[in-house]
Amino acid sequence: MDNIARQSRALCPFLRKTSTATLRTLATKKTLTVAAGQCPVMGSAMESRASFGTASGPKNNSVMAEPVRSTGPMVPPPAPTAKKTQDDCPVGHRIASGVKVRASPVQQQKPTAAKNAVLNNKGNFDYECFYGNMIDKKLKDKSYRYFNNVNRLAAEFPRAHLGAVEDEKVTVWCANDYLGMGRNPEVLEAMHNTIDKYGSGAGGTRNIAGHNRHAVELEATIAKLHKKDAALVFSSCYVANDSTLSLLGQRLPNMVLFSDSSNHASMIYGIKHGNCPKHIFKHNDLDDLERKLAAVPKEFPKLIAFESIYSMSGSVGHIEKILDLADKYGAITFLDEVHAVGMYGPHGAGVAEHLDFDHHQTGAPLANGRTRSILDRVDIITGTLGKSYGAVGGYIAGSAKFVDMVRSYAPGFIFTTSLPPATMQGAKVAIEYQSRTMSDRVLQQKNVRYLKSELAKRGIPVVPNPAHICPVFVGDADKARKASDLLLSKHKIYVQAINFPTVPIGEERLRITPTPGHNEKLTDELIDALEDVFTELDLLRTNDWKSKGSPCGIGKEESIVPLWTNELIAKHDI
Amino acid sequence: MDNIARQSRALCPFLRKTSTATLRTLATKKTLTVAAGQCPVMGSAMESRASFGTASGPKNNSVMAEPVRSTGPMVPPPAPTAKKTQDDCPVGHRIASGVKVRASPVQQQKPTAAKNAVLNNKGNFDYECFYGNMIDKKLKDKSYRYFNNVNRLAAEFPRAHLGAVEDEKVTVWCANDYLGMGRNPEVLEAMHNTIDKYGSGAGGTRNIAGHNRHAVELEATIAKLHKKDAALVFSSCYVANDSTLSLLGQRLPNMVLFSDSSNHASMIYGIKHGNCPKHIFKHNDLDDLERKLAAVPKEFPKLIAFESIYSMSGSVGHIEKILDLADKYGAITFLDEVHAVGMYGPHGAGVAEHLDFDHHQTGAPLANGRTRSILDRVDIITGTLGKSYGAVGGYIAGSAKFVDMVRSYAPGFIFTTSLPPATMQGAKVAIEYQSRTMSDRVLQQKNVRYLKSELAKRGIPVVPNPAHICPVFVGDADKARKASDLLLSKHKIYVQAINFPTVPIGEERLRITPTPGHNEKLTDELIDALEDVFTELDLLRTNDWKSKGSPCGIGKEESIVPLWTNELIAKHDI
Repeated sequence: MDNIARQSRALCPFLRKTSTATLRTLATKKTLTVAAGQCPVMGSAMESRASFGTASGPKNNSVMAEPVRSTGPMVPPPAPTAKKTQDDCPVGHRIASGVKVRASPVQQQKPTAAKNAVLNNKGNFDYECFYGNMIDKKLKDKSYRYFNNVNRLAAEFPRAHLGAVEDEKVTVWCANDYLGMGRNPEVLEAMHNTIDKYGSGAGGTRNIAGHNRHAVELEATIAKLHKKDAALVFSSCYVANDSTLSLLGQRLPNMVLFSDSSNHASMIYGIKHGNCPKHIFKHNDLDDLERKLAAVPKEFPKLIAFESIYSMSGSVGHIEKILDLADKYGAITFLDEVHAVGMYGPHGAGVAEHLDFDHHQTGAPLANGRTRSILDRVDIITGTLGKSYGAVGGYIAGSAKFVDMVRSYAPGFIFTTSLPPATMQGAKVAIEYQSRTMSDRVLQQKNVRYLKSELAKRGIPVVPNPAHICPVFVGDADKARKASDLLLSKHKIYVQAINFPTVPIGEERLRITPTPGHNEKLTDELIDALEDVFTELDLLRTNDWKSKGSPCGIGKEESIVPLWTNELIAKHDI
Repeated sequence: MDNIARQSRALCPFLRKTSTATLRTLATKKTLTVAAGQCPVMGSAMESRASFGTASGPKNNSVMAEPVRSTGPMVPPPAPTAKKTQDDCPVGHRIASGVKVRASPVQQQKPTAAKNAVLNNKGNFDYECFYGNMIDKKLKDKSYRYFNNVNRLAAEFPRAHLGAVEDEKVTVWCANDYLGMGRNPEVLEAMHNTIDKYGSGAGGTRNIAGHNRHAVELEATIAKLHKKDAALVFSSCYVANDSTLSLLGQRLPNMVLFSDSSNHASMIYGIKHGNCPKHIFKHNDLDDLERKLAAVPKEFPKLIAFESIYSMSGSVGHIEKILDLADKYGAITFLDEVHAVGMYGPHGAGVAEHLDFDHHQTGAPLANGRTRSILDRVDIITGTLGKSYGAVGGYIAGSAKFVDMVRSYAPGFIFTTSLPPATMQGAKVAIEYQSRTMSDRVLQQKNVRYLKSELAKRGIPVVPNPAHICPVFVGDADKARKASDLLLSKHKIYVQAINFPTVPIGEERLRITPTPGHNEKLTDELIDALEDVFTELDLLRTNDWKSKGSPCGIGKEESIVPLWTNELIAKHDI
């Protein structure tokens, strides 16, 4: 054992540079465990230790080991035990068992993996064979993605033509251009004018020739939308989330990150890159979150990362209650409003604005005698320009100092070319447009209501939720793909099948996203098509799933109150 | 010590799950060291161990610890020892020494850091104070970035107006729209038409409604340009490099990454996120690279990441010699052509194409009896659509299986909205345009020649290099900023100062990038302005730097042969 200790100290910078006396003291005070939590390897080993502070947390799922979860959307690729193997390689020389050193921690636990590494005729690693095996795995487990070539037509929204055949038209029912702003005349005119005057691209990073009036005005518009001091635009919200969370994790001393188990991949990777202790709390489970918060020392910085609307299920984060917990435990909040901006709230600022609708619309006092709005209380809001606003790009909004720090330190912001002026200008016009009219989002909600009620009448199973997303449940990867293919080939309707890893195995679905352009006529066509596909493929109906225990809450929609209530729709439906 | 060993095993998943007997065997065979190299913490501790295989490497700089280097461009923010401190916080309660647990490995080495953590009145971490201190640090060390609001005018290229004042015009001399494609009429027309027909944005990820003819055609155009099977487009080349390198590092069993010390931040972070053993070789030092390659077992997969043109110095990677080393040691090559595509080679495919110019232009046999071109031998090429091609976005090109694997597994590709159709179409037209005419890049090179020769006549110091970049050397952060400010305010010329962390301290410069639009008249204006600024600020001239040992090779331009030789320019200057 003494040999192992020497070996460990020689390898681990922490053990190596610390005196034995200090280590003993640390071990006594359990500080070593905290330090270990900041180690990206050790941190992930502490799953069953619940080692922070004095409160006792649950023994499982308390620490994020890898971004693969048992529930929730947007799950990245296979688990770590599946990686780094070459056991399917059909050609070449295999490395004989016991030859040389090539063990990784994973491989020590799976000794067959290294044995089967495939070499080419020169005795070197066979890269092409490895790539081929990685693809074969996806083909075998049905998670290989076949992209549909869909060209959404501005003048015929929500119609598109397939591939290069311009007269083969389909109706798109799964895009995230939620409000049809991608063909909004004001937006397109602004883009044309900007291209004519300022050209196609920004020409540099924000620091070197790529900072311009469009960036300044767009960021001011976003900050105003979310009622924050400042905003910062990134290439995408993936980059915004990844860059911001990783920066905060790396820079704040003793930072601990808390993440909803259904968070998007961009947050999962940002948290992973943050290299600090992190806890996943069960999706929307406030008790679980509080247990985990309470287990971390009061004076440690903490951040709670969550979403307002979860894209694959339409479930809605408990924003106000999470803010209360953040206040109680001295945490800051990081709210991803990607699937909400443009569509909720009187100005389209998202669910945080929507929850104090009248206050933000008319200046009415806040309900329940509160002095601060929910929107105001959220520390960091992230959003996208690529969905409801019809463009591309993402952003963060928050305090002036916070935004300036991210601007000054985040490599994913600093070392990349700015978005094109026309993109930024188009996004700005789209935000302004949606902040001065509610008609698009009211019409969208009415179309969502109609679709959901018609699907319910037919017994076509939908994962119930208070938002605009209609996840039609299939529950089988192969059938979901066949349903999608049949909708396209037979009915000229495009709805992409959502399979693992985007949703868990067994929860495959057709994710349908009505827009203001999906009127009753198009909806009736969709319903008829789904009816036909469900019959032809013998897919399970709502009652079938109810008898199987209602996975994802199927058949329990009566308990759901939509964010856009009937009253709110009636009031704003002009 | 026994206690430490127990503690280590309890915390480290590898030590914990492995039997003592196995650990002893591993330690004897040195396999433990290899495994440790795959640990993101231990890996960075192995700097002075040169522990792979049997060959003996140099004792320092052999393993990448953090993405801060002593040389080279695009160095990300401060070193790890500087992070996670709050010692400048002016307000609130400080945590008293010795209170509670909050030590990280870094803080153990810097005990003052944790002592000075600042709390607010409630005893919680003071986030705003922390952000403020991070900004103050940048202000103090002169690395705080002030963005200039520069609006490049398509019709008056390379002129721009400042901020919102449209009649305050300046000449832009530092953009990366290297060929002026940002205002190319064919590109702009293609963008206008695409916007009219397909709208402003893609409307989804590539898998869900965001895959279209523009993506398909752009990727086919890129693959053809680089003579590869396939290509894949990302939000940016930052994301392309980060996603690809991290994926390869994570997935290939026993992968070892080799990185030029001057590589761009996107590669540094991709390699960091790869979580596998990695070696930095000295910039363009083939001996150092070979020593490091030789130290890794033959059968391990290896990747050499480097650039064709390094953006801040203009130095050029030794592509052919690196390919030879890759062949010798069974490595694959990852070549970043971001600052070369569009400008080098008969079709603008970059330096790899340029090196076999006649072969790629006319089909002439390869020089020296070779059977494969340099371009053909490079495994992975990455490039940008945001510089010479005037748009935004980045890409990888390589074998069909490689590209399909990245398409199938890389989260930074999968979970993000596609680029807008008009952006992709504009980029495609730009690539096609530059692949059928050499006039822009020949004119650019002539303008570069004129500028460099005029600067030499005046004794204004330039870091000599064979490329199109003119780094005017200042060697002082404050003076570089003042020079930039004076050029802008007095001479209406915009050249951003390049300071730490983009270049090392003491190597601050004005990075000038002539384009086909920077004719002799504009160049003469620039020269006069630089002459005035150098005199007014009393900046050192070439002879001054020669007497100081010629940092960055100043004054040694006679040894440089430009990539575009005089003969090549004469031949293609129509």
